[in-house]
Amino acid sequence: MEPIKFTLDEKDMPRQWYNLAADLPTPAPPPLGPDGNPITPDMLAPVFPMNLIEQEVSTQRWIDIPEKVLEMLAIWRPAPLYRARRLEKALGTPARIYYKYEGGSPPGSHKPNTAVAQAYYNKEFGIKRITTETGAGQWGSALSFACALLGLECKVFMVRISFEQKPFRRMMMETWGGKCVPSPSPETQAGRQILEEYPDTPGSLGIAISEAIEQAVMDTSGKTRYSLGSVLNHVLLHQTIIGLEAKKQLKLAGEKKVDTIIGCVGGGSNFSGLAFPFIADKINGAQIDIIPVEPTSCPTMTRAPYAYDHGDTAEMTPLLAMHSLGHKFVPPPIHAGGLRYHGVAPLISHTINHNLITPRAIDQIECYEAAVTWARTEGFIPAPETSHAIAAAVQEAKKAKEEGKEKVIVFNWSGHGLMDLTGYDKYFSGHLKNFALPQDDINAATKALEKYPRPATA
Amino acid sequence: MEPIKFTLDEKDMPRQWYNLAADLPTPAPPPLGPDGNPITPDMLAPVFPMNLIEQEVSTQRWIDIPEKVLEMLAIWRPAPLYRARRLEKALGTPARIYYKYEGGSPPGSHKPNTAVAQAYYNKEFGIKRITTETGAGQWGSALSFACALLGLECKVFMVRISFEQKPFRRMMMETWGGKCVPSPSPETQAGRQILEEYPDTPGSLGIAISEAIEQAVMDTSGKTRYSLGSVLNHVLLHQTIIGLEAKKQLKLAGEKKVDTIIGCVGGGSNFSGLAFPFIADKINGAQIDIIPVEPTSCPTMTRAPYAYDHGDTAEMTPLLAMHSLGHKFVPPPIHAGGLRYHGVAPLISHTINHNLITPRAIDQIECYEAAVTWARTEGFIPAPETSHAIAAAVQEAKKAKEEGKEKVIVFNWSGHGLMDLTGYDKYFSGHLKNFALPQDDINAATKALEKYPRPATA
Repeated sequence: MEPIKFTLDEKDMPRQWYNLAADLPTPAPPPLGPDGNPITPDMLAPVFPMNLIEQEVSTQRWIDIPEKVLEMLAIWRPAPLYRARRLEKALGTPARIYYKYEGGSPPGSHKPNTAVAQAYYNKEFGIKRITTETGAGQWGSALSFACALLGLECKVFMVRISFEQKPFRRMMMETWGGKCVPSPSPETQAGRQILEEYPDTPGSLGIAISEAIEQAVMDTSGKTRYSLGSVLNHVLLHQTIIGLEAKKQLKLAGEKKVDTIIGCVGGGSNFSGLAFPFIADKINGAQIDIIPVEPTSCPTMTRAPYAYDHGDTAEMTPLLAMHSLGHKFVPPPIHAGGLRYHGVAPLISHTINHNLITPRAIDQIECYEAAVTWARTEGFIPAPETSHAIAAAVQEAKKAKEEGKEKVIVFNWSGHGLMDLTGYDKYFSGHLKNFALPQDDINAATKALEKYPRPATA
Repeated sequence: MEPIKFTLDEKDMPRQWYNLAADLPTPAPPPLGPDGNPITPDMLAPVFPMNLIEQEVSTQRWIDIPEKVLEMLAIWRPAPLYRARRLEKALGTPARIYYKYEGGSPPGSHKPNTAVAQAYYNKEFGIKRITTETGAGQWGSALSFACALLGLECKVFMVRISFEQKPFRRMMMETWGGKCVPSPSPETQAGRQILEEYPDTPGSLGIAISEAIEQAVMDTSGKTRYSLGSVLNHVLLHQTIIGLEAKKQLKLAGEKKVDTIIGCVGGGSNFSGLAFPFIADKINGAQIDIIPVEPTSCPTMTRAPYAYDHGDTAEMTPLLAMHSLGHKFVPPPIHAGGLRYHGVAPLISHTINHNLITPRAIDQIECYEAAVTWARTEGFIPAPETSHAIAAAVQEAKKAKEEGKEKVIVFNWSGHGLMDLTGYDKYFSGHLKNFALPQDDINAATKALEKYPRPATA
């Protein structure tokens, strides 16, 4: 029997996270405050605990993972690295396809990798309660899970339309003790204002972020902070355990060289987790194609300008230097809710500018085709987000077949799709659509962002 | 960091299944045909492929697992054995609690352990299409998954009320290529008859079994067979990989002796999978408490008579010697759909009669309490069925605390509850009820079964 998965013992888990900021050819442009000047750590203190702010601005290459965080990660880590032998055979490709399986965590995705770390640092800092927002529900459930392990309160503002359409995600959060309310809510000033003006609004991630931040900073006890599940440097840092494990496992698989690294990108956390340790190799001269994949309908990396923009619709966050469609952009209703974000992590944007990674956009129908082929060969049903990485891996494997090359392709299987099966149902019934973004929309976004300072591109 | 899980390499997977029939103090009473005589293998040939019928009647102690079955099992096996350190701490118990985690398979439970084996033997025998029934959906999805891997057609008759209330289970089956129809259906004579008489019937497992068997035996090409997910000897055999792995892993954990083995029981497949290899030790003199757990509302093992009874409502199956509430019994609507079966596997019934195992019944609310404590300490959200095993483990751990004993408790964590969150929702909102079965119902069941032959009790 030829092995299909490569596992590590708990004791072989990486003991440090890898910080890409230490190795960038140039530093990424800093976040800017309302006055146009770089923000200082103190300015973030009402929002995040200082120990996480220190990580956010750190340029130290390796950062120790606390023992207690490792103990929580051990609930589902080290995650296995699989070789997709059945898919290879079905495609008739000479490529060897590996995938890092992040679907085994209790909430079913990579999100808890940072949720348990963030909950831990908040608790260490004396925080009792964490607020956050969630769209499709992956992040809200990951943070509820992490807070349950540490005995912290967790408050999740869930975009109203998702709250109504996905009651199971709310139930999941509540099972872990999280409190989940539809956003906009009457609990915050931001929410009340919107509700007054648009009582029937379906809500948006931007509004939910505003409510979560407001509720954190307005708690006069000082015991509440806010938490974000992607985009920021410290979030991406916590995910690098994925790539660091994968490197050890590729050695076990006997692979000396990797040709292609792939991950799907919304804010960018799962892609970064796998890719950053390999980007370090590329900076040091290794030949690797590194491909972040986004939906054609929300083409931040492939078509949007690099600009300073807010992370949220309500303009509560600092200005971040990133590829962005503008914080007022509302992506089409594709099923990969986790990839419907108007911007992309500053660190990813910066590595695109340095030509270290090569973004690609794929249509939703091609992604579902790949996901169904996947489920019927490899077995696990992927999340709609994950299907974007799978579709790119299939493209690369077919290319290797055409070229007759024995390539080694590694991608991040970021989460399972058991909570998101309606997309498959629509796909089978022929009701799924692709969405192309008109160039006029890109032009309008570019123009709208011209009022902000321009970040340096290298 | 103290280890919380004990893992095996693919190459350390057990290569043989363990057959308890080889070690029973007396043989279990055989199934009887319509004439009251033991059935012969030939009589089952229209329903099952002969290679599985041979396993059904085998008394060989060890049966080789085919290489191709091992390759499919390797998608999620060996399954980890965890130590529930967080729960131990929360309970303040001196007991060491281990659980075998079967929630990591693509459909999320232990069911595919036999689904891949059954699909394999059917394919080897030249079968192209498998029919089955499903209640809550766990078994139908496991078989659809297995058939996808082997390129077999899979047809699932799903109890109508579940089909309507659990659309996600149907979508899961369809993603793997399974065809799922609500039962009763107009596709079979049994279905048409019921529909004519009761057009609004919610359906039942009994009707669905009848339809699945009818469609298999009526296929004149001879290329269709029927498959069952529990109760039968060969199904329980395939599950013993759970207990065989657990034994290796307990050694890794440094445990020389096990005090208590626990599993939940509907038909009995997951319990048997863990327990049978330990029952062998008990037959050979080991001191182990082995506890199958059922819901109070469906007390086959703790209150029902041992009798010959049909496995299905429509009386299509042979008479099986088992503890049974009668094949017309309709269990109360508890959330653990997989435990709502009127009988229990003949092999389990027989070991009860031999005092090798000690059944226990637990109320649904106590099970949900235990499940929530579990989710908030250990992390994974259990299926409602699994919560019965957890509740018994908690009872045993508390007893060990009272007695000040360092017991080793091992239970089977049979599946995750991500597809069954409505039960949690009802629990939190206070709408969950316990159901006690009146003694009159037991008496009526006992009386109704008196028309059949009496099986020997030892």
